[in-house]
Amino acid sequence: MTHLDLGPGPEFDRVRAIERALGAHAAALGDDCAVVGPFPHRLVLSTDVSVEDVHFRRDWLGLDEIGWRATAAALSDLAAEGAEVVGVLVALTVPGQLDDAGVADVMRGVGDAVASVGGTVLGGDLSRGPSLSLGITVVGRAASPVTRRGAQPGDSVWITGALGSARAALHAWQAGQEPSAGARLAFAHPQPRIAAGRVLARLGATSMIDLSDGLAADARHLAAASAVRLELDVGRVPIGDGVSDAAGVVAQPPAAFAAEGGEDYELLATMPEGSERAVREAVPEAQTSLTCIGRVCAGQGVELMLDGHRLVLHGYDHFA
Amino acid sequence: MTHLDLGPGPEFDRVRAIERALGAHAAALGDDCAVVGPFPHRLVLSTDVSVEDVHFRRDWLGLDEIGWRATAAALSDLAAEGAEVVGVLVALTVPGQLDDAGVADVMRGVGDAVASVGGTVLGGDLSRGPSLSLGITVVGRAASPVTRRGAQPGDSVWITGALGSARAALHAWQAGQEPSAGARLAFAHPQPRIAAGRVLARLGATSMIDLSDGLAADARHLAAASAVRLELDVGRVPIGDGVSDAAGVVAQPPAAFAAEGGEDYELLATMPEGSERAVREAVPEAQTSLTCIGRVCAGQGVELMLDGHRLVLHGYDHFA
Repeated sequence: MTHLDLGPGPEFDRVRAIERALGAHAAALGDDCAVVGPFPHRLVLSTDVSVEDVHFRRDWLGLDEIGWRATAAALSDLAAEGAEVVGVLVALTVPGQLDDAGVADVMRGVGDAVASVGGTVLGGDLSRGPSLSLGITVVGRAASPVTRRGAQPGDSVWITGALGSARAALHAWQAGQEPSAGARLAFAHPQPRIAAGRVLARLGATSMIDLSDGLAADARHLAAASAVRLELDVGRVPIGDGVSDAAGVVAQPPAAFAAEGGEDYELLATMPEGSERAVREAVPEAQTSLTCIGRVCAGQGVELMLDGHRLVLHGYDHFA
Repeated sequence: MTHLDLGPGPEFDRVRAIERALGAHAAALGDDCAVVGPFPHRLVLSTDVSVEDVHFRRDWLGLDEIGWRATAAALSDLAAEGAEVVGVLVALTVPGQLDDAGVADVMRGVGDAVASVGGTVLGGDLSRGPSLSLGITVVGRAASPVTRRGAQPGDSVWITGALGSARAALHAWQAGQEPSAGARLAFAHPQPRIAAGRVLARLGATSMIDLSDGLAADARHLAAASAVRLELDVGRVPIGDGVSDAAGVVAQPPAAFAAEGGEDYELLATMPEGSERAVREAVPEAQTSLTCIGRVCAGQGVELMLDGHRLVLHGYDHFA
């Protein structure tokens, strides 16, 4: 890491405190811009904002967990392209009562998340504001980025990991209870599915999306973008920690609760005919489970089946 | 622009409204990530956050002006690298009372600013939050990005444009008055100095920085990063519209007021010996004035002279 050469002033003291917290996880932060590349292939970019009391609450998560979660959520968009991670830029807004140590804690979580998938913190900006907010821009590279648009009739539909734990944690907190340890971990420390996204891309994924709005809603986005119909068996979806109890409270089948829950940051991918065996064998490389939950058909929209019945589920809509 | 293929829902209606407002200034916004490149040279990235009641107030600026100003401020970091503009990503946080038309107005300003320098809106994210906030990530490219670190004794020191108008506008608003038309325009509609940055880079700029914290403070950053001393004649700094009146109110010489004012988003560049004539002839291409205000010496720190006297000035520190 390059030594930071900044003039005096409390704003720059904060930047220096951040630099110390990030340690080897930071690129040189002292210039107007980060300089990266060259990139002979394609560059993949996305930005994601996490706002206190909208996406998280400070009485639910530690500051380092807030940094990890916001960064993992943003990295999830790179995973859905099958991209490698270059790094992240962080636009951090902090309320006045958060001191330098608190800012450093947030940035330590950011740095750990991006380092866990081989990237660095490329740069950032710091401002005061009415509440804690993290604008995370992710930078990746991919020879052939996977979009939402290429699903073909005959493809199989796969998901990574298990669903519903983030929603289970949220329901517990909103009811004034502590979530189960597993559900809390899923919410506080989601794993960016970069390895899974890369192996699915290599095996020929025709389309991919990350599950931020929930399986029901995100499957609809993918179906619309690819102009196909998805037929999904919700009963095959792996159920995350804490889901059974949380689903019982709202009298919903656990699979339906999981399919409707948002912010698990797992991947939904469509894979070409004949790739099933290769996908099953790729689980160790993907560093998570890979489960076939349905198929792509001609038509439009998404059909969700559970135990032979058609389910009507809604997605998670931040503006609803 | 690619047609947006999103599922139903009010959040996606907003994205569609933004797409309409941006028109040809948007890249395809419907996927997880923007895909750009390949970039055989270097890629240059920076992120910048503008927060309501910290960086702007809605009773001072129209929503489209807020979008322009935030974007121009972020693009200024690319200008200081001598980079070409690829585009921007926008993390937009909006309070509940801002409707779809308001969001579209903000994004129209963003789109106009980035289009004015040849870029597009590459992507974004939309969240609700306690106040209006724009996290703008800028993406540029440059064969040889200019840093803050290369100034050499013997170089001459140049600035683009005129200084102090943004501070003059701020002082007027803070006193409950309307700023002069020129000062208001400088604050609401700063011109990203991309053309000037590129021509200065081509003529051999050894270091460059944009003036966001004010000439006095940013010159200190550049001197520290390059391990040199800057001797600047503040009397040579072109004075912006509205500065004379505003400086009179605080009983400061206009040149000192201008050198201490922040957020003009002009450039400070050091140029190698022998380049003076080429720089003067490059004004049309730079699309702004280029003024020599001093020289680089061995040593450290910044000496600001006005009418033969040494000035002690402070910079603008957002956390002070």
